[in-house]
Amino acid sequence: MADAAPERRTSNTLQRIGEILQSGTMQEARRLLNALHPAEIAHLLESMPPAQRELVWELVDPEYDGEVLLHLGDDVRQSLIEGMDAQELIQATEGLDVDDLADLVQDLPETVLKETLKGMDKQRLQRLEAVLLYPEDSAGGLMDTDTVTVRADVSLDVVLRYLRLRGALPDATDTLIVVNRYDRYLGLLPLSALLINDPDHTVAEVMAQDIDGIPAQASAREVAKIFEDRDLVSAAVIDEQGKLLGRITIDDVVDVIREEADHSVMGRAGLSDDEDIFAPVLLSSRRRAVWLGINLATAFLAAGVIGLFEGTIEKSVELAVLMPIVASMGGIAGSQTLTLVVRGLALDQVAHGNLRWIFRKEVAVGALNGMLWALVVALIAIVWFGNYKIGGIIALAMMLNLAVAALVGVGIPLVLRRLRIDPAIAGGVILTTFTDVIGYASFLGLATLLLFTV
Amino acid sequence: MADAAPERRTSNTLQRIGEILQSGTMQEARRLLNALHPAEIAHLLESMPPAQRELVWELVDPEYDGEVLLHLGDDVRQSLIEGMDAQELIQATEGLDVDDLADLVQDLPETVLKETLKGMDKQRLQRLEAVLLYPEDSAGGLMDTDTVTVRADVSLDVVLRYLRLRGALPDATDTLIVVNRYDRYLGLLPLSALLINDPDHTVAEVMAQDIDGIPAQASAREVAKIFEDRDLVSAAVIDEQGKLLGRITIDDVVDVIREEADHSVMGRAGLSDDEDIFAPVLLSSRRRAVWLGINLATAFLAAGVIGLFEGTIEKSVELAVLMPIVASMGGIAGSQTLTLVVRGLALDQVAHGNLRWIFRKEVAVGALNGMLWALVVALIAIVWFGNYKIGGIIALAMMLNLAVAALVGVGIPLVLRRLRIDPAIAGGVILTTFTDVIGYASFLGLATLLLFTV
Repeated sequence: MADAAPERRTSNTLQRIGEILQSGTMQEARRLLNALHPAEIAHLLESMPPAQRELVWELVDPEYDGEVLLHLGDDVRQSLIEGMDAQELIQATEGLDVDDLADLVQDLPETVLKETLKGMDKQRLQRLEAVLLYPEDSAGGLMDTDTVTVRADVSLDVVLRYLRLRGALPDATDTLIVVNRYDRYLGLLPLSALLINDPDHTVAEVMAQDIDGIPAQASAREVAKIFEDRDLVSAAVIDEQGKLLGRITIDDVVDVIREEADHSVMGRAGLSDDEDIFAPVLLSSRRRAVWLGINLATAFLAAGVIGLFEGTIEKSVELAVLMPIVASMGGIAGSQTLTLVVRGLALDQVAHGNLRWIFRKEVAVGALNGMLWALVVALIAIVWFGNYKIGGIIALAMMLNLAVAALVGVGIPLVLRRLRIDPAIAGGVILTTFTDVIGYASFLGLATLLLFTV
Repeated sequence: MADAAPERRTSNTLQRIGEILQSGTMQEARRLLNALHPAEIAHLLESMPPAQRELVWELVDPEYDGEVLLHLGDDVRQSLIEGMDAQELIQATEGLDVDDLADLVQDLPETVLKETLKGMDKQRLQRLEAVLLYPEDSAGGLMDTDTVTVRADVSLDVVLRYLRLRGALPDATDTLIVVNRYDRYLGLLPLSALLINDPDHTVAEVMAQDIDGIPAQASAREVAKIFEDRDLVSAAVIDEQGKLLGRITIDDVVDVIREEADHSVMGRAGLSDDEDIFAPVLLSSRRRAVWLGINLATAFLAAGVIGLFEGTIEKSVELAVLMPIVASMGGIAGSQTLTLVVRGLALDQVAHGNLRWIFRKEVAVGALNGMLWALVVALIAIVWFGNYKIGGIIALAMMLNLAVAALVGVGIPLVLRRLRIDPAIAGGVILTTFTDVIGYASFLGLATLLLFTV
């Protein structure tokens, strides 16, 4: 990695494995593949069409299977799991961290799940159950239960001896968790504090008490916010009585942030978060058809509005030429407002206290830009069609549509959030329905009123 | 935090500070405010209209100023810095980590920057210069230079004594960095390895050698990928000769991931990453006007295409009613393909070896959905207007437009990337230009050919 960017490295490996697969020396492909990190293998698999993917998946050392599955998006993971037999699946789940296992377990077929649980030792089973009690996207669902705890009243020296006796620590252990005798969370003991302080000190004297435990019910998004704000590497998860349940590590938080980001980008286009770019044609078509169908319905609504003014268009066909401009500018301006407000809501920057301010500002911005571009469009329309009236009508319609776009751009996410619908996904469709309908209706309506009567 | 979700907590604080500001007891507002974490203060400030924001900013304890500024988006940060005098700014930069300082320094006015550099001790200045040598979005720009290094041939016992003597470790130190006598990077020594192994072992015996150093030129995105794939908390940054330059910690990587996500969501709507939702009306209007202007140009292009067929529309006004459906469905289908391919490129899943596969798949999906919805639209059009010919024409135009949408949805991001233009920002506008123009042209063109001649 010191001499090649990892991106190029994967492309190279991809190409080489492809070549080797074609020339038939499986042994070499296997060696090349299993020298990679499981995350890199996962990435390779995600970059391959299904046929090649299955071939390569066969070559992966079974001992990496679990880790590789974890690093795959839901879609690809599901398709590979379907091709594995119970034996292989059970083997893949061994050796995984409990929080990761909890992630995977939900994708396993029922029979395999039962087998896996049966084969598990009691402690591991109890831990898994503790995690599965909570929704996947909550602090409880993200936590791992293999915490290393210490009591507040012992000396650092005792802790040091205990650790040496214990041997290996769980991954990403940057702190030990301090609890009282009822297992209630008291604070954190950073490993660095163990190393730099006099061993005669007690844990209570050097532990950090300013990092609160995270309630198991907290949403994944809240957890991410706490980690980001406080620059944490790990944090304790507690129940309602303050009892320690487990710990969350930054690598899981990074996954949450990445998924959230994917969700908003993909959701806006009506795609699922983990959409496999190499999904089978039929599956992709079926999924996308739904989104197209919804959009078709709104398009027909807009067409219906235009249909009301057929008579007007017949008399002055320039209207048909200009009308999409009014609709599309409303959509563009509205989606800027919508994007800003949806992000503001997600970051919790938008609240009751400042809503009126945001409404006023967005409408003012819409009005200003409405006036500016109304003027430009009017001038072009007048030059193009030599008709002052049409210029005035399109200017009025544009100003109206941009003001409405600002209002609905702020209003839609607020209403959707009230209804518990994700505004990042549904917001865009609803917005353009408004701006199309109002754009066409105002332009053609004003034309009907003013063009032939005045 | 144990009993209230942090989101609610900030809203509450926001409301309470608002109330207190109005009732006039500044002392209480100040106390409430400065009890918060700097990241929470930053969040509060970002959730306030400018007037209130300045008032509250005055109340923040100057010793937190630097940390708070760091947690703010570029826009808000810039506006607050403009209101500070040189003295306050210099004070704010003291005590910041060098990598954070490097971030902030680029926003400081020239005079303040000079003063700040003048007041800095030599070692800190050298470190700052080392970071500023590299672009902000590269491994070098992200790194901090206060590394704790050890030599491979010493015993753990020596390291333990050294650390106790040294006292405090830099934030997020989960590993020490092992170098040879020429300061070349050799590997990492996790703190946990120090704690669990026999102190008689040498560093070389227990250090981790499987984590490569990250080249200073690596892009921030590559850094994030390495951290995500390997679940790292910190990593070493090296120059071309393998010499240790500094280290990157996970908190900076989390910021990179968050910014990348913001960039793709905001960029799609033509907004800047850090757009302040409470920005002044004139500033917002001016910025958004550019995007609206670009879109207006493409809308006129589409209008121009419609204009070519004025005669046809005049003869059959139903065409004006139905034509937006063809254009809009192409845009929706195309943006699904575009989103998928842009993400595939960002994740480096799309490469030469599989491009043909992706093209074929997307065109097949487009064709299938084109046929499905062409049928539906044709039936509705026939029922609506009682005209079989129009049904056939719209079906043909839709199939054509959805196939083209798939082609350009894959092609545009590839071309833009070649041209070094961010496909996440420019892709959508270019795509809808294509789908609008081809949608209108195919529908109206086919109508002109078939409706009155056959």
